[in-house]
Amino acid sequence: MVIRPIERGPSETLATELAAMGARARQAAGELAVASTLAKNAALIAAAAAIRASAAEILAANDRDRLEAGAGLSAALLDRLTLDAARIEAMARALEAVAALPDPIGRSIARWTQPNGLDFNRVRVPLGVIAVIYESRPNVTADAGSLCLKSGNAAILRGGSESFHSSHAIVAALHRGLAVAGLPEAAIQLVPTRDRAAVGILLGMDDAIDIVVPRGGRSLIERVSAESRIPVLKHLDGICHVYVDRAADPAKARAIVLNSKLRRTGVCGAMETLLIDRDVAADQLPGIVEDLWGGGCALRGDAAARAIDPRIEAASEADWSTEYLDAILSIRVVDGIDQAIEHIGHYGSHHTDAIVTEDAAAADRFLARVDSAIVLVNASTQFADGGEFGMGAEIGISTGKLHARGPVGVEQLTSYKYHVRGTGQVRP
Amino acid sequence: MVIRPIERGPSETLATELAAMGARARQAAGELAVASTLAKNAALIAAAAAIRASAAEILAANDRDRLEAGAGLSAALLDRLTLDAARIEAMARALEAVAALPDPIGRSIARWTQPNGLDFNRVRVPLGVIAVIYESRPNVTADAGSLCLKSGNAAILRGGSESFHSSHAIVAALHRGLAVAGLPEAAIQLVPTRDRAAVGILLGMDDAIDIVVPRGGRSLIERVSAESRIPVLKHLDGICHVYVDRAADPAKARAIVLNSKLRRTGVCGAMETLLIDRDVAADQLPGIVEDLWGGGCALRGDAAARAIDPRIEAASEADWSTEYLDAILSIRVVDGIDQAIEHIGHYGSHHTDAIVTEDAAAADRFLARVDSAIVLVNASTQFADGGEFGMGAEIGISTGKLHARGPVGVEQLTSYKYHVRGTGQVRP
Repeated sequence: MVIRPIERGPSETLATELAAMGARARQAAGELAVASTLAKNAALIAAAAAIRASAAEILAANDRDRLEAGAGLSAALLDRLTLDAARIEAMARALEAVAALPDPIGRSIARWTQPNGLDFNRVRVPLGVIAVIYESRPNVTADAGSLCLKSGNAAILRGGSESFHSSHAIVAALHRGLAVAGLPEAAIQLVPTRDRAAVGILLGMDDAIDIVVPRGGRSLIERVSAESRIPVLKHLDGICHVYVDRAADPAKARAIVLNSKLRRTGVCGAMETLLIDRDVAADQLPGIVEDLWGGGCALRGDAAARAIDPRIEAASEADWSTEYLDAILSIRVVDGIDQAIEHIGHYGSHHTDAIVTEDAAAADRFLARVDSAIVLVNASTQFADGGEFGMGAEIGISTGKLHARGPVGVEQLTSYKYHVRGTGQVRP
Repeated sequence: MVIRPIERGPSETLATELAAMGARARQAAGELAVASTLAKNAALIAAAAAIRASAAEILAANDRDRLEAGAGLSAALLDRLTLDAARIEAMARALEAVAALPDPIGRSIARWTQPNGLDFNRVRVPLGVIAVIYESRPNVTADAGSLCLKSGNAAILRGGSESFHSSHAIVAALHRGLAVAGLPEAAIQLVPTRDRAAVGILLGMDDAIDIVVPRGGRSLIERVSAESRIPVLKHLDGICHVYVDRAADPAKARAIVLNSKLRRTGVCGAMETLLIDRDVAADQLPGIVEDLWGGGCALRGDAAARAIDPRIEAASEADWSTEYLDAILSIRVVDGIDQAIEHIGHYGSHHTDAIVTEDAAAADRFLARVDSAIVLVNASTQFADGGEFGMGAEIGISTGKLHARGPVGVEQLTSYKYHVRGTGQVRP
């Protein structure tokens, strides 16, 4: 398969090309909105088969991407870019998992009858056209495309330039799935150029695109948020806390703190700051710290924490609002639950925070007063993930409060409309 | 009561003042989020009493507004601005009606348990701080303030400059209600200046304000949408259609068309275009037209409509996408339901559209394929109103698909968060 980037004409040419892509997406969205669950699932299952059948082409495209990227890539970027047989199989299985999810479209969210006999039914419908702008992980192409399709939305995908050929090969397989099910190819379109100007043009196409989902690092998300004329579903910082309450079970506290910090340090749900009640700090902090040292974690603490273990470095003010995404933890000893809640309100990012306590009243207070998308009692912050919520795949986690908060799965990619049925009613 | 506009300093002074207002709102929002239903309702009921008790002050403030506005106001604007005893009583009753609504906050939207024992509860929470920017109707001050309060949000209100004194007098009454219930005065704040620069500053305060709701004409909404760095819940055009299907009951069609157009012509749910199936146009259009002539409606139609009644003027292409908000109707004869759906998709504004039919399959097809917030079968488009939906008061109707679609009541002014309860679970 030969992938040919479109000719680099003047930016007007690119704008025309993208406008045509937007019009095709809008047309496809109309067809997808009324597509049957059966057709959408058939497309996803056929796409999974096509991904497996074209593994050789996808791997060759991925080789070409890595060759073109050359030696300039960091090890982390190269790892995210690289596909192998296992990752291709995982992509195919993810498509099948999305096929197995319940179809949110057409479901009644609420239904009631007014005294005048009018029957109101609030029904889930797709959003329309979703643009997903992401970095160099080629599997996002399949994940984002499949979630949009299942939720009845047309997708315009703009992948990272490093994964250009891989993404094209994956989209070709998705198109074979759409063709099997008789759904329009324009249901999933990939921007056919590496030209960075394309992103700016897409973000201005507010007639053609209903929502933009950026997936990637902070600089990408900030650029998209600043430039977009279209609503953005975004993920900002994950400055997550675990608060060990005075009524914490010590064994649970140790296990939850260790897992929240070190299971994976680079995920948004990783704990960045540990708060511990002064009443139990002297008893419980040593064991917690021992686990963390054992796991290779660097520790920075306030004076009270350092008084308990002088090997803890001094934390600076900046530490409390830093998302390390690394094996580093800041530790503060607090005067009870209200100071913990206040600290989280001041320094946190409204993402995911946990309390460890056996005191039901303390748990309720923390749940009610911590203004975060996900608030946990006696569980690891690393559960901040759509899959762990039982939502199947996720397109990301929203740190905003509008439209969707927390994990964004197929249900969060929908809107609703009202079906109102009467028998000739007019309004007095 | 003497109302003193703040001194007009340089715009930095205004920005500082508004930033302080934003900080007070954020602080109040934290208190409102955990306020009891009892306290919020007590504040609303006490505010209704205060509105009644201060009727004389409110009327005096309103007199002053009308005096300052002078002769420059149109009759329509003057009518919207003017308060009288009946309108003050209606405002008090609206506050009591909001008190009687169910409290959306803290309610569980969904709850489930995962195989690892984690209990997930998706719970409604307030959005935070809502800015409402409106024109010269002083009663919006009470409506918007009460809906924000009931939904646990702090409100920053920016009323039209013509209603400056009236709005202040109304907010003073709302503050007396808040004081009775022990809730913070900053729960409802009015921008204390007529300086138009205030709107631009507010729209940039994305740290302090979570959502902006403009209420007013198209130019206000367009300005707010263009300038805002904060998500906007907006109402654009209401180009609403009634389609009279070949299987329409003629009596229902006449009643629904007449009511949809002429009950009130200036509301967003008023019909602007009538579509009628060619098979029944010759039979049914004459009666429909007779009713409309009788009501003083101007008619503009396509050639087929004019062939049936030559008194109908010729419609131009622009008529199909015009929101008249007046006693004018465009009429098109279509070749069946699919052409009607296509017309609505092309010229409509995704607001409210109705079909008149006794054919259940046609009704289902119209409901599924017309992509509008409200789609009705055998009922007037004038039911497009939160009150008629049984939602109590509404802050407006959203024509967007994100977050809220259709009438925006207290439930639509909320977000959600996840309460996750475990017993020590860590993620494998």
